[in-house]
This record gives sequence, structure tokens and C-alpha cells, in this order.
Amino acid sequence: MMPANVTCESPAAGAASGAASPAAEVAVVGASGYTGALLAELLLRHPSLRLVAVSSDQLAGEPVRAHLPRLRSDLRFCRHDEVGGVDLAFVCSPHGQAATVVKRLLDDGARVVDLSADFRLPADVYREWYGEHPCPELTPGVYGLTELHRDEVATARLVANPGCYPTAALLALAPLRHLGLLDVVIDAKSGVSGAGKAATARTHFCSVDSDLVPYGVGSHRHTPEIELGLFPRRPSLTFVPHLAPLQRGISETIYVRLEVLPTAGDLRALYRDFYAGEPFIEVCEAPPELKDVAGTNVCRIFPHVDERAGRVVLVSAIDNLMKGASGQALQNANVMLGLPETEGLV
Amino acid sequence: MMPANVTCESPAAGAASGAASPAAEVAVVGASGYTGALLAELLLRHPSLRLVAVSSDQLAGEPVRAHLPRLRSDLRFCRHDEVGGVDLAFVCSPHGQAATVVKRLLDDGARVVDLSADFRLPADVYREWYGEHPCPELTPGVYGLTELHRDEVATARLVANPGCYPTAALLALAPLRHLGLLDVVIDAKSGVSGAGKAATARTHFCSVDSDLVPYGVGSHRHTPEIELGLFPRRPSLTFVPHLAPLQRGISETIYVRLEVLPTAGDLRALYRDFYAGEPFIEVCEAPPELKDVAGTNVCRIFPHVDERAGRVVLVSAIDNLMKGASGQALQNANVMLGLPETEGLV
Amino acid sequence: MMPANVTCESPAAGAASGAASPAAEVAVVGASGYTGALLAELLLRHPSLRLVAVSSDQLAGEPVRAHLPRLRSDLRFCRHDEVGGVDLAFVCSPHGQAATVVKRLLDDGARVVDLSADFRLPADVYREWYGEHPCPELTPGVYGLTELHRDEVATARLVANPGCYPTAALLALAPLRHLGLLDVVIDAKSGVSGAGKAATARTHFCSVDSDLVPYGVGSHRHTPEIELGLFPRRPSLTFVPHLAPLQRGISETIYVRLEVLPTAGDLRALYRDFYAGEPFIEVCEAPPELKDVAGTNVCRIFPHVDERAGRVVLVSAIDNLMKGASGQALQNANVMLGLPETEGLV
Amino acid sequence: MMPANVTCESPAAGAASGAASPAAEVAVVGASGYTGALLAELLLRHPSLRLVAVSSDQLAGEPVRAHLPRLRSDLRFCRHDEVGGVDLAFVCSPHGQAATVVKRLLDDGARVVDLSADFRLPADVYREWYGEHPCPELTPGVYGLTELHRDEVATARLVANPGCYPTAALLALAPLRHLGLLDVVIDAKSGVSGAGKAATARTHFCSVDSDLVPYGVGSHRHTPEIELGLFPRRPSLTFVPHLAPLQRGISETIYVRLEVLPTAGDLRALYRDFYAGEPFIEVCEAPPELKDVAGTNVCRIFPHVDERAGRVVLVSAIDNLMKGASGQALQNANVMLGLPETEGLV
Repeated sequence: MMPANVTCESPAAGAASGAASPAAEVAVVGASGYTGALLAELLLRHPSLRLVAVSSDQLAGEPVRAHLPRLRSDLRFCRHDEVGGVDLAFVCSPHGQAATVVKRLLDDGARVVDLSADFRLPADVYREWYGEHPCPELTPGVYGLTELHRDEVATARLVANPGCYPTAALLALAPLRHLGLLDVVIDAKSGVSGAGKAATARTHFCSVDSDLVPYGVGSHRHTPEIELGLFPRRPSLTFVPHLAPLQRGISETIYVRLEVLPTAGDLRALYRDFYAGEPFIEVCEAPPELKDVAGTNVCRIFPHVDERAGRVVLVSAIDNLMKGASGQALQNANVMLGLPETEGLV
Repeated sequence: MMPANVTCESPAAGAASGAASPAAEVAVVGASGYTGALLAELLLRHPSLRLVAVSSDQLAGEPVRAHLPRLRSDLRFCRHDEVGGVDLAFVCSPHGQAATVVKRLLDDGARVVDLSADFRLPADVYREWYGEHPCPELTPGVYGLTELHRDEVATARLVANPGCYPTAALLALAPLRHLGLLDVVIDAKSGVSGAGKAATARTHFCSVDSDLVPYGVGSHRHTPEIELGLFPRRPSLTFVPHLAPLQRGISETIYVRLEVLPTAGDLRALYRDFYAGEPFIEVCEAPPELKDVAGTNVCRIFPHVDERAGRVVLVSAIDNLMKGASGQALQNANVMLGLPETEGLV
Repeated sequence: MMPANVTCESPAAGAASGAASPAAEVAVVGASGYTGALLAELLLRHPSLRLVAVSSDQLAGEPVRAHLPRLRSDLRFCRHDEVGGVDLAFVCSPHGQAATVVKRLLDDGARVVDLSADFRLPADVYREWYGEHPCPELTPGVYGLTELHRDEVATARLVANPGCYPTAALLALAPLRHLGLLDVVIDAKSGVSGAGKAATARTHFCSVDSDLVPYGVGSHRHTPEIELGLFPRRPSLTFVPHLAPLQRGISETIYVRLEVLPTAGDLRALYRDFYAGEPFIEVCEAPPELKDVAGTNVCRIFPHVDERAGRVVLVSAIDNLMKGASGQALQNANVMLGLPETEGLV
Repeated sequence: MMPANVTCESPAAGAASGAASPAAEVAVVGASGYTGALLAELLLRHPSLRLVAVSSDQLAGEPVRAHLPRLRSDLRFCRHDEVGGVDLAFVCSPHGQAATVVKRLLDDGARVVDLSADFRLPADVYREWYGEHPCPELTPGVYGLTELHRDEVATARLVANPGCYPTAALLALAPLRHLGLLDVVIDAKSGVSGAGKAATARTHFCSVDSDLVPYGVGSHRHTPEIELGLFPRRPSLTFVPHLAPLQRGISETIYVRLEVLPTAGDLRALYRDFYAGEPFIEVCEAPPELKDVAGTNVCRIFPHVDERAGRVVLVSAIDNLMKGASGQALQNANVMLGLPETEGLV
């Protein structure tokens, strides 16, 4: 097998990075979907990373531009198994397929940020929701919710990039964990890009437009990932995602019963302290709009006390393809490689 | 004051109804907004009702068609105070303004379906949420959630047509009332027509499109109306409406804790029995889509048991301008006038 | 083969029509797509027609409601070849497949309104754009642009229902034909339902939303149908359809050079006279909006003289699934069966 | 008057630029609208420019973040007349108001990129379409269609940034000018942001969504700007803009008659040669999609020969807020200040 940086590299891509110090070389495996394509777009603009390979088994050999006109690059797609010799690889393959790709890349010496669900759960929990794990000895990886696991991410060889829904939920819930979570309802609304690029009856424009519908009521596979993120508390948890008529963005309204209900002032202070100094978390005074996070790696969180009902209500908003996938993956890579955490993300 | 049926009537409108028996004469007060215009459109097609007046103080004197091209009628707008001598009037004025119009029409001998919030609450509750009531002696009217109050509606002189959010919520929750409601969270998503026709920063296309945001978290004025509808139970209740990027439709996902959690089979049977024979309620096997109720007076309800969390999850969908406003108003009028309940609505 | 009215009929459907005089029996062949489903919905409400069969080879045997919840009927889908013994059949099969179905139904004694492209063109023109015609002896049928061919439609056995784009274009252009058409540019924008129900990369929500793109530039198959409609004039014609981010509706802006440029007043008068008394054509004073024709069988036309450029500009708007397909098909059926032309359509 | 760089500057903004060489200081006048806010967002990320003032008379004194959460800056709005002492100012005031602001800034020594229509036309043409010009001695400024007027822009004190529609049209038409333009029809579709941030009946979500309508048929004020751009040829020109249900983006389909119709190959070659080396112009093989230019400063152009009709058809796509306004303004500023033309724009 020829090394990928010979096969797939483009002189123009190299020239584009143009950093004085040797840039780390990175690859995107599975770049034909939304998250892979966006990652490649981010990486082409990143000052300290050099994108040397983007792979797609179906499109291997074709110019990237022909299929992804936003990627103003001269790279060509290579096959997955041609990717090698890189410092870090982003794996955007579907769950189930990602695991073996990840294993090969780790064996090849690369560090990996895996955007699939394959390394987020212990093997036994994975089995319950997805089936037998292809590489049980490797799972779970370091859970890459950067703000909560920064130190482990920094030294990890394999980072499991969080799911989009769990990212918005766990960032919103984390400050409440020590107040005694009793009961959590997560009503999540996602744009259609969360369902992927496959053309199906559900993603047809006439199915989505002017409509809004819950799916996977009480049975969505992100449920165990959220439960694990609340460990060791095991509140009763209901998670209901909805498909909303928009492309990008997740808004979650989260209803929480706690052992002790804080005052509005205390709740606000708790959140501000918890996330003080975080470049990508904004605690806000009103429910966040998706337009304020669109295209950014920011999570905006609105904490609120509903005194009539004795409950905390949280609203959390992210761009599902950025903080919910590709952006957070790049944030993790920056941490892993010792780069400024926000580099290439603002 | 000239009687309205002289001032505003159009020969064409009369001819259009063309029923053998004398049709009841009806008027729409406040027809320039969404609900009034839609009511007028429905009434022009109704076989047993004769629309003799549509009023708008701002547009008085102008042809209806010039402003509402879908109303293929030769009527002209008249002033509110020119409406008189009708059998039944639909009042679509804003809350606060509707009350005095209603009072005048009742004094004039008309029966009234009021689509505002003015007669849904007892005067003391109204005061808490809206301010002093203009006609406290008249409120509350008969609460026009037709399926639950059909007999009182039939003989009422004044029907308070329910709010859009309470309609979807109370129809979904009604079958559970005798199971002991402990805790209710209503996460509601509404199309923009629910915010009315006024051009504001919030209703600007670029504000709504590609976005989705909660508003009035824990403080929306439909909260007391829902609470009253659950009487005598007083579960802890949190109601959070969201503005979704679509024109028409409400989808509510409702999370309920009960004293006793039913089995999935019992829950399904309970709903089917409760709504057996109802022409406008459909209990369904999967979360309802808005497209299946758009333009109809139907409420579709999906009841579900979340056994992991020990909770019932309901999904309820209506067209907010139909079952949530104009359609239900016409349904009530049919009941009041002894007409078939579905006439002009299918 | 069992007669369709035994196989597919539902007692409820029969009861629903409930007309005193014996209703004509009709069938929809190919009811799983948009146009067939909408036709079935219209027919279930039609006072003088009795829908006795809806067919879909894939869904044969299944309750119609399970797949099309808006069809509040107890009918079940039957196979195409089970449809028989009806007075009139609507064929909604794809072009190429429709022709043989139509032939069989004609042989069975039914009159047919065919919504495909199969009988709109003479066999030689069909061959140029679609390939060899399966039943060249039957094509063209009577071209069912009702307002222009009412008399032939009334007596036709086979009506070729016009394409959506040609309907909007030819209704707008018809009054100009005797003024000497020299040059015609049709810039058409269509909702996504025009592309059909198939889930493809092009109909994916994330492909359509927030975008607008021409397709088939200068090569769309509706071009020859429009050319034939302008016969015997052969203006130079460019037709460019665009896919717009909306579900239903076609808006065409048409740029016309004439031998003689009329004055604005003459142009307006010409259009008003030409379409005087037509129930479904509205000549208007401002560019028509799609919302004013949505869900209706109406075509709204705005004729305008651009004096600076010496050109007439027309704007034509229809609901592509109604006047552009199912609505016009029903209008044609009304004419064929001697019913009021607007019955079931207002 | 205090100098703006004292009044409005924020230490954080200064720190953000962090360039070794002294950055040019710039201001955005009228930053509460779409173009001003986007310019500010671009400038905060620009490596060689230092945003020292953003003005809004209505919001003066308030933190920018409170109104524009995407501007992650500590700047506060100042009044327009507090802006001073900057190297270059972007003026985003409405036409009519911009002229006097521009004059004051020029007198203050600043170079100016004006995004309004005030300096695009000679005073006599301005008068015909807008009324008397407030500063006739200053108009026209250098017309900032960068690709066509780069040299004049480089040395200009006042650049008139082109209108959004003319940008897309003139870039598409420029290569054809020497082929003899006889007749030009521009059918343009714009997102709603082009209509500005004002909440009006036209920009209400329920007015725009699911609709598409032409406006200003034959009378839009961008017409003379396009005509001037085609000078000295005066083809007969019809320009019809349409409001499309999307936020950002302009797609224009342009129908052109030429003295000599080129072959498809010659046309393609002509465009490739004309725009060879241009970083922001992409000649493409298929009609461009808006998603491929969204958020970028790129104009994508598809040239096509319609041989049946003897006409050239062009499709041109831009992001109306980027290449159509703020992006091109920044491109012009880069040229004026001797910076790399693409800096801060990729």
C-alpha cells in the first residue's frame, strides 16, 4: 500500500497551510458525508494542520471539488485503506464500520478522533443498543466532550467524539450534577443534517418542510450516551428527539427535578462559574437562537428556574455539525496536538 | 345604525349558499387577521350558513377580495359596530378589545363564538394574567373544547373558543385525568401564524427561518387555561412553547407522571375508547405529522408509555388555525345551531 | 379478474358520496404518488363522483389510511390490473408506464384522464423527447387545458392532462397568440412536489432548503408541449425551470416580444375579455402570490407592459398539484361527465 | 467630539487583531442592519484590520454583543458622528442618509467604502430614480465591482460598493460585452435578507414562506446601475427581481441575444479566459447552487448556449450579503489598503 500522503496529497493543499513550523498532517476518512466534508473545509483553513488525505471508497480517484464545490482544494478522494502515515485521523464512517477503520489507523501509529458512535460506550452497553462490538477491547475511548474531559483528551490516542444530542444535553446538565438530579426530560429538536445525507422518505423536502415530528420516542440510541454522562446519578430520563424543518442546529429544552431547587440567582451564578473562561460555552440571559450558534463551535445555555412547578428548565443550542460533530472533533484535535484550543474555529 | 345585512351583504354571497331552507346568518368580526380570514373562507363554502358581514375597522368599505384574494366573494369590509342582526357572530378581535364587542353583540341578540382569550378564564384568574376584565359579569363563557363540553356548547349564548396550545394539550390529557396526574411537562412547537399577522422582529422571515426557539418559558398566558382544563387535579405543570420555522401547525410532546402507570395496551385502549366516534380526533400508532392535520379540523394523538422512565409521553398535533382556532369555532357554531358537527369542515 | 368495484370498494366510501342520483364511478390508478393521493382526497369529497378504487401495485391490499392519513376512507389499495368497470379512470402512472394502462382501461370501456406525458404529444415528437411511444395509434389525446379545449374535452374518451409548467405558461400566453409572438422566455419556479415523491439527492431537504437552482436549462421535456400549445406560431422559445425551496406552487415569469406592443390598458383589457366568466382564471393587478392559489384550482395571471424594453412581461401562478395536475384532471372529468365544471373544486 | 477610537474601542478588539505590524483602523457606520453586522463579524476576524468603532444611533452606548450575539467582541455601539480618526470606514446607512455621512468621513480624512446606492450613479441618473442627490459633486464614486475596476479601486478615496443584483448580473455579462449585446432579460431571485431587517408585511415569515413572487417588475432601482455597467452598449434590458423563501443568496438566470451566437465551446473558453486567476469567480459546468457560495465571497457563473432559441443563457449565484455587499466591501478595502485581496475572506 502506498502511503496516503503520496497518493492523495495535493501540492496546492500543502501550499495553502504555509506555516513556518512543520504542520501536523491529518486525514479525513469518510469525507463524502456532511461531517467529513465540513471537517475537510475547516481543516483547509486551519493554520497549523495540513490536510493530506480525504477518503471515500465510492468517490476514490475523483477530484474533491467536483463533489464538494465548497472545498476549494485540488485534493482527490482516496480509498479508506490508502490513508496512512498521518499524525491524526478523523474518522467519519458510519457506526459499525468505523471501528475497524479506527483499529487499523491506531495500528498505523495515528491518533484518532472518531465521530461515529463506536467508541462512546462500554462494550456491554454498546451491545444492548447497537449489537456486538467489532473491537470490544478498544471501547470506550476517551469521551471527547472537551470542556468536561480536557485532560484525558490531551493525552488520548483514541477520542470518541460525542453525539450531537448528548453534547447539547450534557453541557447543559453538567453544572447540575452535584445538586442531585432526580428526573430529566430532554425535548430535543434537530435540523435534518443530523439524519445524514442519505435520501430517504424521511429526508425528502416535502416530508420535512412545514412539519415537525418526534421520532424514536423513548428509544433513541443517544439515550445511553446521555445516561453515562450523568453517571453516577441515574435520574429517570426521557429523551425525545424531533426532526425540525431546518438544516443545521439542535435546540434542546430540558426539564429537571433536583433534590434541592436553587434560586434563580444561584442557578445563574452556578452556570457562570462552572463555565468561566470557556471559549465555546456561553451562558445567556434568554433562550438561545440557533442563528447565534450557526457555523460556530459555540454552545449557548440558558438556565431558568420555574418556581411555579418547582423545576429547572434549561435551553441548550448548538450547531449540530460544528459543536455537535466536526467542530468539536477539531477542538479535540487541537487539544490532542497541543495547539490553541480555538485555532481554526473562530 | 344600519343593519349589517344591508350594509355589508353581497348578493353573490347570498346566492352562493343557495340552500333550500333559510340559512342562519353569521358575521365575522375582525376579519383582517389570520383566524378571521380563514373563518370567512370556511363560511363562504358552508352549505347551511350565510356569511352576511365581515368587519375590520381599518379596511371598512374596501372589497374583501382586494385584501384577501382567497376570499372569492363580493363582500366589502364593514366597521365592527355595523355588524348587527345576525344569528351568530364570530369575534376575532384581540383580547381586551373583544370583550366589549362581544357584550354589544349579545345585547343585540346574537349568539357569539369568541376566539379571543377574554372569556376563557374566571375574572380573578384573568386579572392575574391579563389585567382587569372589561366585563367580569360575563366571564367565563362556556369553554368550547367541543369534544369535552358538547352539551353546554349546544345551548350556550357565549362560547369561549379555546386557545390553540390548550386545545392540543387538553385533548391529549383528558383521557388521563382519572389516572391521577402528578406532573405534566408540555413542550409545544407552533408555526408562526400563531404569533399573528403583525410584522415584528420576531416574525421577520430571517428571524424565524432556520431557527427554533422557546419563548415565554414558564410564563405563557395559556398556562392558566391549561391548568383550569385539568381541574380539579392540580399537577405541577410546566408549559414551554417554541416558535418553529413553519406557518401552520402545533405539535406538542407532553411528559406525564401518573399515580399509576398503565401498560402500553391499556393506554391505547383507554384513548380509543375515550374518543370512539369522535369525527375530529384520531388516536394514532406513531407520532403524528403536521401534514396529516394541515388544513383540517382534526387533532391526532399518539399515546406512549416510556417504561424505562416510568412516564407517559403524548404527542398531539393540530392545525393551529383550524382545530386551534377557526375550525373549532365553526365546529362550535355547528353544535350551537343544531347542524351536523362536521358540516363545512370536511 | 374480479371487477374492481367488488375488490376495492368500501361501504364507507359509497356512503360518503350519498347522492340521490346515481353517482359516476371513478378510479385512481397510481395513487401512491402526490397527484394520485390528492386526486383521491378530492374525489372523496366530490358530491357527484364515487371513488371505487385506488390502485398501487406496491401497496395492494393495504388500507389507504395507513399510508395516506389524510384520506379519511376505508378503501384499500388494489393492483392496477384490478381496476375495471368504472365510468372514468384517472391514470397517475409515470410516463412510459401510463400508456399501456390507459389502453387497457379504454378497452375496458372507461373514459380516461391521463396525468402522465404519454398522450400529450404526437408520436413523432414524443419519440424525439421520450423515446418510442408504446401506443402510437392513441396519441395525442385531447389536450386537456380545459379553458382552451373545453368542447373537445367534453366528448373525449382520452384526455391528456397538461403538464404543470405548460398549464401556467399556455394559459398566460394564449391571449397573446394573435398579436404575433416573436420571442418567448419562460423562467419558471416550481415547488419540490413537482419532482415527485422519490427520495433522491435532489429532493433531500438539505439540498433544497435555502437554495434555488435552475435545472434542465434549455432541455426540459415540457418544452415541446409548450411549443405545440403556441402552434401555429413558432416563436423562438427558451424555457428554464427552477427548483424552489417550497412544496407546492409554480410561478412563471414570461418575457415576450410581439410584432406589435400593446398599451398597458389594451393588454389588461385583452386579458379580461379573453378570460371573462372563467371560474378558475383570475387576471390580477399585481404579481400573483402562490399563497393565493395554494390548494385551489385557480390560475392567476398578471399581464404587464415593459415600455422601456418594448416587451410584455407575464406572471402566472398555479398550485402545481391542483391546476397543474389533479385539480385540472378533476375539472376535465367534470366537463367529460356533464357535471358543473367547478364541482368538488371550490 | 471625542475621537471614536477612544469612545468605542475595546481592549479585547485590539488584542484580537494582534498583528505585528500596525493594523489599519476601520469603522462600520450603521452596524445594526444585516450588512453592517456581517462586516463587523468579518472585520473582527481579519488579521490586518482593527475594528475600532461600530455605530448605530439607536443603539449608541449599548454593548454590541447584547444585540448581535455573533459578534464575540466587547465593543459598544457609538453614534455615527462619533466615528472619526479611522483609516477607512464602511458606510452601511440607507441610501439618501449615507451621502452626508460619507462626506463628513471623507472630510475627516478617512477613505470610504459606501454600501448604499448613493454614489453608484451620476447625479442626473440618480435624480431620475431616487430624487435630488445630497452631494452631487461626489457622485459617482469609483464603482467597486472589484474584478472589473481593480486599479481604480486601489487608489480611490470613495468606493461605491455595487448593489447585490448588479454584482451578480454584471459579473455574468461582462465577458459578453464585446460580442454585441442586443437584448438582455435578467430574472433574479433573492433571499429575504436583501429586503433588509425592517419588519414589514412583505418580510413576515407567513408572507414569504412557501411563496415566491416577483416585485418591482420593470421598475427596480438596480436597473440603471446594471445599464451603466453595460455601457457603452445599450441592449434592451428587462430586470425582474423575485423574493424567494430563503434568507441569503441571489440566483440570476440571464437570457441574452448577441450579434453573433458563439459555440458552446467558445463560450466556455471565453469565460475561463476572462476570469482566469480570479480568486472569487468560478466558472462552472452546471447551474450553481446557492449552498456552494453561501457564506463566501465567491460568484459562480454557468454560461450556456441555447441553440434551439439562438440565445445565451447565464446563471450567476452569489451570497447577497457577502459578494453582494459586505464581502465585496471588504475585498475592496483590501485592495485599497494594499492587503492581499482575499485576506479575511477565506
